[in-house]
Amino acid sequence: MTADVSEYDGLLNDLYQLTMAASFFRSGMNEPAVFNVSVRKLPLRRAFIVGAGVESVLQLVEKFHFSRQALDYLSTLKIFDREFLDFLASICFSGEVRAIPEGTFFFAEEPLVEIRAPLIEVLLLETGMLNQLGFASTIASKAARCFIAAAGRRLIDFGFRRAHGVEAGVIAARSSFIAGFHGTSNLLAGEKYGIPVFGTMGHSYIMSHDTELQAFEDFMKTFPQLSTILVDTYDTPHGVENAAAVALKLRESGATLQGIRLDSGDLLELSRRARRILDRHHLGEVAIFASGGLDEFSISDLVKAGAPIDAFGVGTALVTSADAPALDINCKLVEYKGSARIKTSTGKASMPGSKQVFRAFSPSGAFYEDLIGLAEESATTVHREFKSNPAEVRPLLETRMRGGRRTGEHEQLQRARDRFAENLGTIDPRYKVLDRAPAFPVRPTAALNALIISEKLAVEKRQS
Amino acid sequence: MTADVSEYDGLLNDLYQLTMAASFFRSGMNEPAVFNVSVRKLPLRRAFIVGAGVESVLQLVEKFHFSRQALDYLSTLKIFDREFLDFLASICFSGEVRAIPEGTFFFAEEPLVEIRAPLIEVLLLETGMLNQLGFASTIASKAARCFIAAAGRRLIDFGFRRAHGVEAGVIAARSSFIAGFHGTSNLLAGEKYGIPVFGTMGHSYIMSHDTELQAFEDFMKTFPQLSTILVDTYDTPHGVENAAAVALKLRESGATLQGIRLDSGDLLELSRRARRILDRHHLGEVAIFASGGLDEFSISDLVKAGAPIDAFGVGTALVTSADAPALDINCKLVEYKGSARIKTSTGKASMPGSKQVFRAFSPSGAFYEDLIGLAEESATTVHREFKSNPAEVRPLLETRMRGGRRTGEHEQLQRARDRFAENLGTIDPRYKVLDRAPAFPVRPTAALNALIISEKLAVEKRQS
Repeated sequence: MTADVSEYDGLLNDLYQLTMAASFFRSGMNEPAVFNVSVRKLPLRRAFIVGAGVESVLQLVEKFHFSRQALDYLSTLKIFDREFLDFLASICFSGEVRAIPEGTFFFAEEPLVEIRAPLIEVLLLETGMLNQLGFASTIASKAARCFIAAAGRRLIDFGFRRAHGVEAGVIAARSSFIAGFHGTSNLLAGEKYGIPVFGTMGHSYIMSHDTELQAFEDFMKTFPQLSTILVDTYDTPHGVENAAAVALKLRESGATLQGIRLDSGDLLELSRRARRILDRHHLGEVAIFASGGLDEFSISDLVKAGAPIDAFGVGTALVTSADAPALDINCKLVEYKGSARIKTSTGKASMPGSKQVFRAFSPSGAFYEDLIGLAEESATTVHREFKSNPAEVRPLLETRMRGGRRTGEHEQLQRARDRFAENLGTIDPRYKVLDRAPAFPVRPTAALNALIISEKLAVEKRQS
Repeated sequence: MTADVSEYDGLLNDLYQLTMAASFFRSGMNEPAVFNVSVRKLPLRRAFIVGAGVESVLQLVEKFHFSRQALDYLSTLKIFDREFLDFLASICFSGEVRAIPEGTFFFAEEPLVEIRAPLIEVLLLETGMLNQLGFASTIASKAARCFIAAAGRRLIDFGFRRAHGVEAGVIAARSSFIAGFHGTSNLLAGEKYGIPVFGTMGHSYIMSHDTELQAFEDFMKTFPQLSTILVDTYDTPHGVENAAAVALKLRESGATLQGIRLDSGDLLELSRRARRILDRHHLGEVAIFASGGLDEFSISDLVKAGAPIDAFGVGTALVTSADAPALDINCKLVEYKGSARIKTSTGKASMPGSKQVFRAFSPSGAFYEDLIGLAEESATTVHREFKSNPAEVRPLLETRMRGGRRTGEHEQLQRARDRFAENLGTIDPRYKVLDRAPAFPVRPTAALNALIISEKLAVEKRQS
């Protein structure tokens, strides 16, 4: 299948990962290294990021290898010697992966994934991990915003045609399903992940028929229990009247019109008008479905204005995360050969050391503060560092691979979806807004802070 | 390979394409239809769109089929009958494809692709065509803006890690190469399309070594003629001094430092400082490479300020087309069973009929005006409709498939790149600006206009 990273091959890399690896190999530098994947800064208006892409990263890490074809290509570049290419021919992943489970909310600087393995192995997985985690989490976060805006109305991913390729469409469907979407129009995603698929009809269907009325009738005869009819091809109110007429005509044959779809014009006004027309014909059970350039803001406006819309189809804005199409996601070396590492570039400084993220929950079960600590710390040891006395402290990073193998079962997608619902239900409500949310409090623990300070000093000393 | 649409299968579809197809099949409606793929409205700040994705669409159309696995999945949905699924099992493309060649500039409403085939075949190719053409053209257009901004300095695609999946990274590398980029860091794209690959080094390389100096030396020893060294891990000017020291030290062994890379901070000031340091050490041949959150605007600012930067690496902004991550691209039915079709939805009206796009060139070879006409019109017949007397009128849509088969060779990528250069060199310079370009003049021909008017009347009559 096109959108499958399981066919991953060592060429899923930027060239510099290979040149660095070649140089390390030449110098015999391949000791254990620890890298953290984290988001440096949340995009504008995002109060949290919804973690996604971990399952695809695990798959990618498991299958990591260099095919014959990849090695042949690399040798055509004439920059790598035979010894290094032979080394690549037998490389696979032998290390450990810890990750925050999919569907969990996380924040800037928190490691979504921590990977520990011989330096060259991690280096050659960096590009693929960032690519998969960054995009999947971008879309899950955008979908969460739509879900908050829809306030209980159903959402369907309609974005396949506007996604950045086939794989992007499939990942977007999966990520939005994690973040509360009801389903997708995307058949590949339906097949690959078992996500429920939904569809209505397109304008070309209507236009192929001589009249709209004839088109509606043909469609309802084909799908007597499964028809959502598009009413805006020529004139929307007239289209709703046509839909009502066909619904009434075919009712005696046992057909039931499921819904109508509005796809252009003033959706608030048209949905009200459509509802009145349908109700006048005693078609109260016919749902109103809206689409056409929607995003979290227009959905929120329609919901707040009381538009009688039962479900929304969201396309372009969702699958491209149009207002923030990427995360500032990075993979940083934090430990090499057992000693912590730090980068001090202007505006891009990193936090050294192998880590754990600790989350504080109130007695009512709400989470309100995170601490980024060292891996050797525990919920018990960091407990008193939280501002108020938490009822519970939970570590977020879980071990998913050890010695190059998975430590447990593949997680079911539904589990990630449930986790999203739990997170949304337990985060302090002031972060569930579309704009101007306060920053969620995240700090390093005292122990991590001490390491940051000592490493900064050590770097200054070593480099001077 | 992951990012290969050649494994295309009928599930690259939104569900509604299949339900519509099932209804057409049931009604025996599968006469020849003509669909146009076009962009309704150019995104903000775009003066033109650079066509790309056509080769991948041709591949997708050629390989169009439903696999056993796809049919099995569709039957689990329990909405399609056996007869229809049997029909899908043997479907393939039997029609004609005309397209504007890759690398050509085009404008709103102009068909980038026109496809003519039995209705159901086209319907089932719509999602895939939009997905591939939309994204590839989005990135080619963004890359063109960077190319204009760079004013002759080299550009490298550095965006693989921030792209919307693996396939998106590969398409972005290909599209930006068409639009003048010098190469990419993306090895998959290098292997798949023969695009030149480039790379420097990452921060983790420096951080794995005890000192920056040691890291630089190790790297240059591995790649004596191919080292671009990253100097901002700790302190940029100090890093440049270290790079210079290593370059001078290894010079006698025959090594030549190619360049240094700046990746953070004030790139104008740092590039000037770096240039001074390098020149002071008589390292005038060492190039300065800049990266880090660049887009066409920051590149333009640096170039205009005279920053001594020789090449730019562009990542996130390029591969996501961050300011305009999608095109309003659509596939519209324009003819069915030999008669023209039109849609009159609010703000989304379509132009009926099979088409040709005619482009007028001045005596100096510049193009300055387009007409959208009917397929049966010719450069000769529409000539006098252009505002000033064109030296030449060229039709843009070329036949690429007929009777389900390609009419010519696969086009070499270099040809599309050359065509981009020709287009950029011959478009009126007032459209080569990053903002506030005037709208390029595009109108329907008199014949198309007459058809639009008569079809609008016919629709009103039929639907009332």
